[in-house]
Amino acid sequence: MTDVVQHILEDVYALCAADTSGAVADYIPELATADPDRFGICLTTADGYVYEVGDTRVPFTVQSVSKPFTYALALADRGEEAVAAKIDVEPSGEPFNEISLDPVTERPRNPMINAGAITAASLVAGDTPDEQFDRIRRSFSRFAGRDLELDAAVHASESATGHRNRAIGHMLRSFGVVESDPDAAVDLYFRQCSLIVTGRDVAVMAATLANNGTNPCTRDRAADPVLIERVLSVMTTCGMYDGAGDWVNRVGLPAKSGVAGSVMAVLPGQLGISVYSPRLDGHGNSVRGVLACRELSRRLELHFLHVGRAARSAVRARYSIVDAPSRRRRTAAEQRTLTERGTRSRIFELHGDLLFSAAESVVRAVSPPAVTTATDASTADRPLDAVVLDMRRVDDVSDVARSMLDALAEQLRASGCAAGLVDPRGTMAHTVSTLDPDGSGRVFSTLDSALTWAEDVVLDRWCDGPRQATEVTLDDHPVLASSSRGNRNRIAALTTTSTYPAGTVVADIGDPALGLALVLAGRVTVEFVSTDGVVRPVSTLSAGMSFGEIPLVRRTEFGLRITAVEDTTVAVLAPADFERLRADDPAATADLVITLLDRAYEQVETIVGALRRVA
Amino acid sequence: MTDVVQHILEDVYALCAADTSGAVADYIPELATADPDRFGICLTTADGYVYEVGDTRVPFTVQSVSKPFTYALALADRGEEAVAAKIDVEPSGEPFNEISLDPVTERPRNPMINAGAITAASLVAGDTPDEQFDRIRRSFSRFAGRDLELDAAVHASESATGHRNRAIGHMLRSFGVVESDPDAAVDLYFRQCSLIVTGRDVAVMAATLANNGTNPCTRDRAADPVLIERVLSVMTTCGMYDGAGDWVNRVGLPAKSGVAGSVMAVLPGQLGISVYSPRLDGHGNSVRGVLACRELSRRLELHFLHVGRAARSAVRARYSIVDAPSRRRRTAAEQRTLTERGTRSRIFELHGDLLFSAAESVVRAVSPPAVTTATDASTADRPLDAVVLDMRRVDDVSDVARSMLDALAEQLRASGCAAGLVDPRGTMAHTVSTLDPDGSGRVFSTLDSALTWAEDVVLDRWCDGPRQATEVTLDDHPVLASSSRGNRNRIAALTTTSTYPAGTVVADIGDPALGLALVLAGRVTVEFVSTDGVVRPVSTLSAGMSFGEIPLVRRTEFGLRITAVEDTTVAVLAPADFERLRADDPAATADLVITLLDRAYEQVETIVGALRRVA
Repeated sequence: MTDVVQHILEDVYALCAADTSGAVADYIPELATADPDRFGICLTTADGYVYEVGDTRVPFTVQSVSKPFTYALALADRGEEAVAAKIDVEPSGEPFNEISLDPVTERPRNPMINAGAITAASLVAGDTPDEQFDRIRRSFSRFAGRDLELDAAVHASESATGHRNRAIGHMLRSFGVVESDPDAAVDLYFRQCSLIVTGRDVAVMAATLANNGTNPCTRDRAADPVLIERVLSVMTTCGMYDGAGDWVNRVGLPAKSGVAGSVMAVLPGQLGISVYSPRLDGHGNSVRGVLACRELSRRLELHFLHVGRAARSAVRARYSIVDAPSRRRRTAAEQRTLTERGTRSRIFELHGDLLFSAAESVVRAVSPPAVTTATDASTADRPLDAVVLDMRRVDDVSDVARSMLDALAEQLRASGCAAGLVDPRGTMAHTVSTLDPDGSGRVFSTLDSALTWAEDVVLDRWCDGPRQATEVTLDDHPVLASSSRGNRNRIAALTTTSTYPAGTVVADIGDPALGLALVLAGRVTVEFVSTDGVVRPVSTLSAGMSFGEIPLVRRTEFGLRITAVEDTTVAVLAPADFERLRADDPAATADLVITLLDRAYEQVETIVGALRRVA
Repeated sequence: MTDVVQHILEDVYALCAADTSGAVADYIPELATADPDRFGICLTTADGYVYEVGDTRVPFTVQSVSKPFTYALALADRGEEAVAAKIDVEPSGEPFNEISLDPVTERPRNPMINAGAITAASLVAGDTPDEQFDRIRRSFSRFAGRDLELDAAVHASESATGHRNRAIGHMLRSFGVVESDPDAAVDLYFRQCSLIVTGRDVAVMAATLANNGTNPCTRDRAADPVLIERVLSVMTTCGMYDGAGDWVNRVGLPAKSGVAGSVMAVLPGQLGISVYSPRLDGHGNSVRGVLACRELSRRLELHFLHVGRAARSAVRARYSIVDAPSRRRRTAAEQRTLTERGTRSRIFELHGDLLFSAAESVVRAVSPPAVTTATDASTADRPLDAVVLDMRRVDDVSDVARSMLDALAEQLRASGCAAGLVDPRGTMAHTVSTLDPDGSGRVFSTLDSALTWAEDVVLDRWCDGPRQATEVTLDDHPVLASSSRGNRNRIAALTTTSTYPAGTVVADIGDPALGLALVLAGRVTVEFVSTDGVVRPVSTLSAGMSFGEIPLVRRTEFGLRITAVEDTTVAVLAPADFERLRADDPAATADLVITLLDRAYEQVETIVGALRRVA
């Protein structure tokens, strides 16, 4: 199916097919034999999907559409500086086959006119013209994703009649721009132009340019990304000959046309387009090619200067640890401190691609200017104690954005504000210092571990009351705290206390119910392990907390992995003892279960609260 | 602070300040008086934040930087066609002050050279040159965000010496390009060029172009977005005079320079840059202006053809209702059907900005091609019964993307597949048909309501076993089901049964605990109301389900709003009766509470499962 896009292409095709103006090129006799009614449109996405309408499998010679690719090869073989010394990059305002150089620089004005293209071909590496041609052919084949071959008839026809290009060759030689045999250079150019492609090939070549030089169908690297930017720049200003201004105005895509009737256009990062229709306009561009590109650009909103929307901030949400407490249990004194001072710890949730502008908006949000001109920057509760950047919804970070965020973190630390990242996918390319969410690392794989850390930063600075105990007695354990003394004692009598050394897996996924496990000392991590083996920390439990309730009550297996991260002591009420308690002592059971229910609902409320923030 | 960006600008500033080559323009005597050492860089974001280094508040005359703005005004006043009849948009390859027209078209080649700019000024609406000038001055002031004034000395100096421009004026008149008094048109142009700006003004004007024509500081609309795209196109190919190719190659930003020493550059959608330094190179462009723009583009990766990453799919996740069941309780037969047929209902979670390419990837994912070339498209379980597009993480949808998704929905429906949207923010600009998540609408405000709907589509087609009851007796209610008959009867005896008419708020946020409410017939919605009054559906409860447990057990107020959507019968165990039960009948209490605990843990697991998918 994917009829939706197909229908758009078919609409554009039908519209443009009605235009039968223009004439097939005849300055190379062999080109004049082309069927003028042929017409094909092909659109290839930067991930390699091909849409096509009409004659997209008809062979024709690549002609001037070859020029950007040979230019890329010359840049790769000789370096930008050496090529720039031979070929300029300025629009010429002259026909493509002008026998002249720039009077000031004595160089061809750009590589998209014949003089520049012949020069570029002469610069391709190779000891002999045959080696050079083979190198060009193989490079083009990588762009197209298949082995391209020479049309001997067109080459012969071009050789026999290409006096104008020979004149250009000798002119280039006389000015020392071409340093080898000019006839050989011109013949190399003729051969390059005589390579056989189809509309589909050209669209894939365009998509390879769009995909930063990697062929999206074969995954072959055809050219270096830095060179692609250069080539697309020259195509933007010089690709459509002396119609460049109108082209940028009305189409707005880097493009190149060829006299066989093809037009190639590129939307960087997104797609490549080819149109094939042999009738040409006065500029030497395919009439339907220009028309179809205009229509596609207009209907699909492809103009590279098109701004779909006002800039948006990369900061999707900002909140403090007061709004979003961690799941770590806190003492009353800790809770009070967090309520009073929690706004000194802030979380900034980022999203989208972080290029310069997005990173700039992050820097501004996190570290607002002293004199505020924006309306949303808050200077209250400054200076901050801790800042967490939540990178989980960020898709891509450019080099400059990465260095800006690193500089921001440095700056925060220098001003006494701790800085952390939630970045489980390593988007920021920092090594995740530790998968232990409570370790010393400042790069966290879960939001909760970062929240816990941000709370601890505030508590270490401001809390002078009692901190969360590292041990509790069974009698003081909160799960038993609301039971009467008698009930508490009877429950406690049924438990067994064990100590697990650091590193022990206390219960693994699929294990049968262990019972209600009350943590008395130490610390365990709770982890989810996905079917593909990825381990994701869920929470950390310390003294006063519990686990194992769900398998116990629901009579299911463990769905999470519990691991002791330090020597950990737990008192366990085994399933059989829970059933005994239930049978023998309903009142104690009710007390216990109501406490568990209270804690479960608390958990539901915490999670729902978190979901609400996200939604 | 925001020192990070400031530091980058300062680095670039220091680097460029070292270059003291070039010379102050002297063809207008008054310009020659400028201090050659002045240097300022200003960067304004598309949301109006201004970074500045050096002499950004020093006044100078706008000169040729005025040209894009007058061109925009001429386009607005006369329409594109009328302006195109007078001024072409092709790069000239000639100096800016050439006294010549295109020999073929007999028009100025573009509006960025003097001949084109004088013509553009002559086209601005107004009955007299003074009215025209006032219109220009007011338009520029909207772009700058403050009232701009004329530098009378520069204007006088330019008037006294501008013979070349007068010659151009008369040439334009002789060819009928300018239709009014050519001296008046040239004087209008002189006045336009003599408006006083600062580097900061120019950066704000650039940011207004970047922000689609709306001044980001004042929020004033200065020009229509369609015209902005035209103006930026011409700046791309013609803005830097005969250095346009090199500029696109090495800077890659639409730009315009002026002989007073300023350069203005625009990154559409993102930012505007101005550099002021009066020493000019041979092209008439500010030496440091060009250098600073090059450095900023390189360091900040601002080139408009720069592709930071390979294209990514707009489909963030895809799953079926088997992977993500709704929270609606289902019968065993229903559950079995959903397990067997649930993959026929698919959810596609989208993200990012949906322009053409992104929408294309969505269409392809939802409706894969018959012959698959992509690797991830699955044709299993086709045809589908229901498709849901989850738009909650989509930031922006362009017109073409919206029409493509609408066409996709039409196509799906035509092929017998129901199509729904989760789109609480109305991103797709459809009216949300109903906020009742179980209503007939296909646009849902929560994922759960869409999942429920998608399940119902599958069940209506495939389930021939018993469907979820619309009524249960108290005796059959699942909350009591696992209690012994005796316990069940004793609990039932303590409840009170009431019927709430459709529309009644059964319990509102902040209400005290109502007790454990067992739904026997009808249906209630559970809604969260945020502090800013936004109502968000949480779930829908029908016969066999319950609510009110959390306030009852936690002794808190209602945190959610419960509303009967049809006549609804509930049996309520009030808080006092629950306490009585607990005191008198611990065994019945334990039974009841364990059931509630089981349901609570089930809910936790469901929510955690959902979170895992999202994480």
